[in-house]
Amino acid sequence: MINPYDDTYFMRKALEEAETAYEKGEIPVGVVVVINDRIIARGHNLTETLNDVTAHAEMQAITAAASFLGGKYLKDCTMYITLEPCQMCAGALYWSQISKIVFAAEDSNRGYRKNGVQLHPKTKVTSGILEEEASTLLKRFFIEKRNLN
Amino acid sequence: MINPYDDTYFMRKALEEAETAYEKGEIPVGVVVVINDRIIARGHNLTETLNDVTAHAEMQAITAAASFLGGKYLKDCTMYITLEPCQMCAGALYWSQISKIVFAAEDSNRGYRKNGVQLHPKTKVTSGILEEEASTLLKRFFIEKRNLN
Repeated sequence: MINPYDDTYFMRKALEEAETAYEKGEIPVGVVVVINDRIIARGHNLTETLNDVTAHAEMQAITAAASFLGGKYLKDCTMYITLEPCQMCAGALYWSQISKIVFAAEDSNRGYRKNGVQLHPKTKVTSGILEEEASTLLKRFFIEKRNLN
Repeated sequence: MINPYDDTYFMRKALEEAETAYEKGEIPVGVVVVINDRIIARGHNLTETLNDVTAHAEMQAITAAASFLGGKYLKDCTMYITLEPCQMCAGALYWSQISKIVFAAEDSNRGYRKNGVQLHPKTKVTSGILEEEASTLLKRFFIEKRNLN
């Protein structure tokens, strides 16, 4: 039997969050947190709307998932993220001890891997799921922003 | 004329925040954010109380200071922190473009400098102000916690 709840399925849900961010004029990054094939938290970047550099999609979703679970550790959870996390979000994911992260597009400039930021030893990483869709949305955002200025 | 508002003065205020965290059973770390010799934000670690790994003193104070200023960048601000920031908080400070951070105790284990996390090029760093007081409070917390378990 085919399981419809694969990495691509959940990354599409994260992409829907990124599109919501895009519609709000935010850098389009979206996230869902999943446990046992169930989405328990969603988030999209809100740094401009909230005037807050800490309001990345991942940070909000970590807080929301912990609130749902009633505990601060995201054991047995997977976070789907449309862009490689920055050092702040990777640091937060470290503290959360999340079981797995899956990200779509790489961020060779601000991504956590550039500076040697550590995830928790318990955290597995998969990348490249729906990479093209996530990258296309980000590129569209930055091209449109450049043309406006 | 002597200026009473020196680094030691503001670090004492950060230590008061750390003591508040200690009284709540939280790892005792405190923060104040200062602009023009005026404290515009305070924070102390609340990870246990809020069940949220992102609730470090620095994260809360960045959000509060940006809210006070009405803008997300903490230009011309100095953050006084009783412990060297972790990689999450250093990542958030990077995004804030804060002008200066001053921390008391080093954290050779979880501090941002261990993993090569970058602060913003605009951010100056001073360390060691009231180091002994901050370290003593942290040691007291961990000794008492060990004895309880």
